[in-house]
Amino acid sequence: MNLTIDREILLENLNTISRGLPVKSPMPILTGIKLYATDTDLFMTSSNTDISVEVTINDSSLQITEAGQTVVPGRSFIDIIRKINSKKVSLYLSEDKILIIKADRGEYKLYIMDPLDYPKLDFISQDNPLVLPADLIKSIVRETVFATAQTEKKPILTGVNFNHQAGKLIITATDSFRLSQKILSIPEYKDFNITIPAKSLDELSKSIDNYGENLKIYLSVNKMLVTFKNICFQTRLLDGNYPETSRLIPQDFPIILKFNKDELAAAVERVSLLSPRDTAKDKEITYSIIKLSIKKDRIIEISTNNSTLGDAKEELIPTSVEASNPITIGFSSRYLLDSLKSLMSTEISLNLSGEVRPFIIRGDNDANLTELILPVRMDN
Amino acid sequence: MNLTIDREILLENLNTISRGLPVKSPMPILTGIKLYATDTDLFMTSSNTDISVEVTINDSSLQITEAGQTVVPGRSFIDIIRKINSKKVSLYLSEDKILIIKADRGEYKLYIMDPLDYPKLDFISQDNPLVLPADLIKSIVRETVFATAQTEKKPILTGVNFNHQAGKLIITATDSFRLSQKILSIPEYKDFNITIPAKSLDELSKSIDNYGENLKIYLSVNKMLVTFKNICFQTRLLDGNYPETSRLIPQDFPIILKFNKDELAAAVERVSLLSPRDTAKDKEITYSIIKLSIKKDRIIEISTNNSTLGDAKEELIPTSVEASNPITIGFSSRYLLDSLKSLMSTEISLNLSGEVRPFIIRGDNDANLTELILPVRMDN
Repeated sequence: MNLTIDREILLENLNTISRGLPVKSPMPILTGIKLYATDTDLFMTSSNTDISVEVTINDSSLQITEAGQTVVPGRSFIDIIRKINSKKVSLYLSEDKILIIKADRGEYKLYIMDPLDYPKLDFISQDNPLVLPADLIKSIVRETVFATAQTEKKPILTGVNFNHQAGKLIITATDSFRLSQKILSIPEYKDFNITIPAKSLDELSKSIDNYGENLKIYLSVNKMLVTFKNICFQTRLLDGNYPETSRLIPQDFPIILKFNKDELAAAVERVSLLSPRDTAKDKEITYSIIKLSIKKDRIIEISTNNSTLGDAKEELIPTSVEASNPITIGFSSRYLLDSLKSLMSTEISLNLSGEVRPFIIRGDNDANLTELILPVRMDN
Repeated sequence: MNLTIDREILLENLNTISRGLPVKSPMPILTGIKLYATDTDLFMTSSNTDISVEVTINDSSLQITEAGQTVVPGRSFIDIIRKINSKKVSLYLSEDKILIIKADRGEYKLYIMDPLDYPKLDFISQDNPLVLPADLIKSIVRETVFATAQTEKKPILTGVNFNHQAGKLIITATDSFRLSQKILSIPEYKDFNITIPAKSLDELSKSIDNYGENLKIYLSVNKMLVTFKNICFQTRLLDGNYPETSRLIPQDFPIILKFNKDELAAAVERVSLLSPRDTAKDKEITYSIIKLSIKKDRIIEISTNNSTLGDAKEELIPTSVEASNPITIGFSSRYLLDSLKSLMSTEISLNLSGEVRPFIIRGDNDANLTELILPVRMDN
């Protein structure tokens, strides 16, 4: 292998490749990046067993004088290309198992691994992709991934479920204490029901960060392949049945409170400074609990009592109140702040159906997005 | 105690107070901030036993309707004042040992501690301060603190030594593998020889970050007090004799190499990506070792050999070379990068006196600042 290429082109593609590169791996060969040069193209591949990424470089700056393949130590290779500041870089595979990187007056030699040891990555090849805009995927990731479970207690909950039936795509994430659900209409595609690891969605979202066009999505029984630009991004899917969540979501809301989102978030953040931590329950992480009550004159009070530090309360004037009865509801301030952050609307509504029933948060301009939080029972 | 004050004024002073506030303390009362209101002034105090800070607030926005004193939980108090966004805030000490903070529609109650339990902090009171510009102190901190020892093996080396004799102030920091020394002329002040904890200098530097005028410095046997604006910042001094370092610094340099600082730093950073870690010696932290040699045509090569990953070398053309003989010298790339970062000059010089003798880094525009690094013996 012997080639030269613009450093910026190489680095940009290595940044994409780094999405699939494990920090450590039980298979040491996977800490390497596979390089494969034909007479015209340079292919680079990484895989952490969950995610596999392949890029095909066919840039006008690429000049291949000798085809070949190798596996280079991934982190060191990326670090060197990142720190170099030359315009061009050349890669030369010497006979004594060394990749020589030359850039201006610098020369770097990396001990390589045997490309025959690199596992064969089966990228799905099939027709009829689902075509979705990259921006839609980015917003789905922002709106759902935060609500997935952080522990492996129920592994299926560490992913986001995409359930497509009769033209309707229901996207759900829940850690069983809160839930985020988005509903889209996708009429012309076959039914499917898959659960994608949250981490894979995060890495996919980062890969398409500067990309505003369409993605092609291919599905098999246990894998999803996303292609865009010169990139193939494949992830495994989670095994198992995703729990039925539709019954969880209340439909009738005797109390609907509308707020300016930022005002509500600021008051909740302040009050939660003094809120006690909810460590009693079987929660994954201890979140600070606050109380919301409707006071006379339609003022809403957000408060907390902390036997160690002290108490806090803030009064808020909602932009609208529909309330058939008084209510006091307790919940994790962290869950509410996460939900508010996922909504883009200036105006949001809290839809309550009882002191111990889940409540819903919706945004005026967040179409088809439902945020649900389970309250905690308050003793006082 | 009953008072109101502009939130911004209170917060700005609390930011200063936070420099002396411990995260944890064997004396729980010290996690609190002491508030003491007279009819006209509000005093706030914090102490972590090393550092004590006191501010006196006499702002036109301050209205005290009832004098008094208390000790409030420090972190919670600062967090609340920081998160509030009202113009005014009022503090009221109720009879049942609670401080009530009111701001717009928010009300926060903090359980207080007994001000009689708060230790008496003896701020030095004496005349004839040493007067130095805040900017000079900030640059001394930037130029020296990084070279202090990070472990307590020799406690005296965790501080910066200030030795004033016959009108000359010699400021020294060393971890015994490298050294940073600044010499100033301060003719009209008595002799002193003190060692200030690095952490105290860091906090002092942050306290004066936005302050460009003079500081007044008072010294006692075991304390230093710095006063500026409405602030008293006091730190304990380190016990013990600081080692004599003047013999360490070579005076003759057969080899002087001048470089553009940024070019040298970039090449060193790149090469050190592949440098092996120096774990064999009794070093506090393992720093990556690189080699510098003079090649023919007066080219300087910076290189490293790594039996695990591979090799790296960069060629540099110095802006000037004085060299009576060839040399290859090995040293910690991290130490060199730290030194280069502390210099403000565009042009710097490496002054070498032998392969196993300490070498010196100086900057064309860094007057009286000497950076010294001990080389490591290279086997090849």
